[in-house]
Amino acid sequence: MVSGAGPEIERLTALLSKLPGLGPRSARRASLALLKRKDQLLIPLTRAMQDAADRVETCRICGRLSTQNPCPTCTDPARDQTMICVVEEDSALWAMERVGAFTGTYHVLGGLLSALDGIRPEDLRLDGLVQRVRSGRVREIIMALPATVEGQTTAHYIADRLKSFDNQVEITFLARGVPVGGELDWLDDNTIAHALKSRR
Amino acid sequence: MVSGAGPEIERLTALLSKLPGLGPRSARRASLALLKRKDQLLIPLTRAMQDAADRVETCRICGRLSTQNPCPTCTDPARDQTMICVVEEDSALWAMERVGAFTGTYHVLGGLLSALDGIRPEDLRLDGLVQRVRSGRVREIIMALPATVEGQTTAHYIADRLKSFDNQVEITFLARGVPVGGELDWLDDNTIAHALKSRR
Repeated sequence: MVSGAGPEIERLTALLSKLPGLGPRSARRASLALLKRKDQLLIPLTRAMQDAADRVETCRICGRLSTQNPCPTCTDPARDQTMICVVEEDSALWAMERVGAFTGTYHVLGGLLSALDGIRPEDLRLDGLVQRVRSGRVREIIMALPATVEGQTTAHYIADRLKSFDNQVEITFLARGVPVGGELDWLDDNTIAHALKSRR
Repeated sequence: MVSGAGPEIERLTALLSKLPGLGPRSARRASLALLKRKDQLLIPLTRAMQDAADRVETCRICGRLSTQNPCPTCTDPARDQTMICVVEEDSALWAMERVGAFTGTYHVLGGLLSALDGIRPEDLRLDGLVQRVRSGRVREIIMALPATVEGQTTAHYIADRLKSFDNQVEITFLARGVPVGGELDWLDDNTIAHALKSRR
């Protein structure tokens, strides 16, 4: 990308374009917005990124991103340490926390099994989960994985692997159905079929 | 935005969401992408931003962003210093430079006149342009402003203001017409009318 903007601005733009959701054009707009609002945006964002780079780690118990290790969720006595909600990424964990309805702990896999992308069980944070279950304190594992082929393959692989332990861990799955506010007309057939089967 | 991600990640996400093209959801995805790719993305981007914050300035002659002041365009003897291309923002200048067909200099206004947004002549980099014209070295001013009401109002305001000087500065406008590869069927009526009127 030769734009005559100078190597500093071009490097900034090239790196910004690697963020999800930003292409070359929106990366240029983002660069310009940063440079035009140096004090209000560029400098505070640089500081926030430096701070995150210095302080954010991966929790050694659940794998979530946090400035504490173990993270607050894994050490909070007010949270039910006998329940583990298994999620793909931190973004799913953040979504669960925004809802505020879950009071247990998490386990962040860091991906999903995928034959296509060559992601195997050893590429995920699975040993840690098995270890937590083996410790004997866990009573329920909630699979909060995406309703996709990869998500469901991963959930069933984990369920199979945990079944081999001779203990009373219950494995549950998030319910499938019509989203709140969802109109039937806009839903795919699979969701409607699921919702019908699980009617109550 | 309470997500239980911790104040560092939330501040990072909040600042990212101020970039053009990123909403709260894509800012969360960008945060996660940065934190998951610390060495490949977060740290290099932080450095590039720090570098830009430290070194990029506004050229005191033309107003463009550059690490040199005056910028290379304003001092390059290979560029025709008697021609000034007037643009709204650096992004338009970068687009012109990508094309590589213009060998003169620029003047970056930093905005457009807008009664709606309360942007008046004194909010733009106009005095510098007048001064450059007054110096007597300029032969042609090319208005490369957007083909919008604000762009055209600004262009005509500048043309009027420069007319008061009793010198032979020629003021030209970018041609309006059918974009290369553009099909008539997809063009608005105004563009077609312009292209017809300026046919050659």
